[in-house]
Amino acid sequence: MTTRPAKGLFLTFEGIDGSGKSTQCRLLAEALQAQGREVVLTREPGGSKGAEEIRSLVLEGDPDRWSAETELLLFTAARRDHLERTIEPALEAGKIVVCDRFADSTRMYQGLSRGNLRPAVDKLHQLMIGREPDLTILVDMDPEVGLSRAKGRQTAEERFEDFGLELQQKMRTGFLDLAQEFAPRFRVIDGNRPVETVAADVLTSVQAALT
Amino acid sequence: MTTRPAKGLFLTFEGIDGSGKSTQCRLLAEALQAQGREVVLTREPGGSKGAEEIRSLVLEGDPDRWSAETELLLFTAARRDHLERTIEPALEAGKIVVCDRFADSTRMYQGLSRGNLRPAVDKLHQLMIGREPDLTILVDMDPEVGLSRAKGRQTAEERFEDFGLELQQKMRTGFLDLAQEFAPRFRVIDGNRPVETVAADVLTSVQAALT
Repeated sequence: MTTRPAKGLFLTFEGIDGSGKSTQCRLLAEALQAQGREVVLTREPGGSKGAEEIRSLVLEGDPDRWSAETELLLFTAARRDHLERTIEPALEAGKIVVCDRFADSTRMYQGLSRGNLRPAVDKLHQLMIGREPDLTILVDMDPEVGLSRAKGRQTAEERFEDFGLELQQKMRTGFLDLAQEFAPRFRVIDGNRPVETVAADVLTSVQAALT
Repeated sequence: MTTRPAKGLFLTFEGIDGSGKSTQCRLLAEALQAQGREVVLTREPGGSKGAEEIRSLVLEGDPDRWSAETELLLFTAARRDHLERTIEPALEAGKIVVCDRFADSTRMYQGLSRGNLRPAVDKLHQLMIGREPDLTILVDMDPEVGLSRAKGRQTAEERFEDFGLELQQKMRTGFLDLAQEFAPRFRVIDGNRPVETVAADVLTSVQAALT
């Protein structure tokens, strides 16, 4: 739904690695704060003390140490903690939550990239999470540009980046399909433009949801 | 089922804290090994490298650091890893797996003791675990005796022990109800007797399942 909820507003950013969504999260948070709004800027996986510990457990060490199914359960545990400890309290207090990745990333990365776990992802989400964002910004980006950006800032922890062009293309298509599947809450924004231009479009979309 | 499966045999022990099930697990494993059987003795939560790391994450620190729901997801992640890395490979190799606690403990401790999460426990088990033991030994024990035993060996990590008599009684009744619910695979053995007497009864039940 894009109508203003009674309490708070839950905004998420999605997109392939290197799409610029983390920068756009920060710019949006700053713009909303400049308007006097209370904003909580957060991210997944992580976003609460316990969820950050689970994030470390999943992302450190050998990439094959967890199966796709175990990884899905660990990320869902992290999301549950993040939701209970960070997101829901902020929304209850009437704040705007800006979150870099949420369940849509799980639908893509666990649901699509490591075998077809999408049915399990959906059932697990329905059972243990439930919450969907009020508005999701998909920063749509040329996979080649995204990949070269992501590689430029790769750290040891960020094994999600290490996928290659074919997977980036598959993920881009997957995110666009997801935007159609959940059309009412998605806004697709062309990320292949100057950062300020993208940020202005994001702010326009969010303002529309706030009023 | 109590008929001998084509490959391996999956035996679990359940019961309240201080029921003596860990001792009985070890004695059964030794007795089966003495008969020339290949036995894998394992436990939950834990039982594989990753699952032991998840166990530490859940059991260390403030007992309230995780909600019942997050704890359930973490234990399910640990079980999935344990199943994939320890239990299934051993069963495939034709070994006997003797496991100290399994999904029935989750049905009790997460399903019953921290709010009524049993429906979520069941759905999560069906979705991500699936496997049930071939035979489950319930070591039935007087809750007062169990509690005094459990307290005698309590460590900082073992916060599961710290529940008090009322909960021990509730858990005992819960385990007996579970033994009725899953009657074909359960054997209830009176643990209020000398260790050797209990061990002899356990071995008799397991031999019957092996032949």
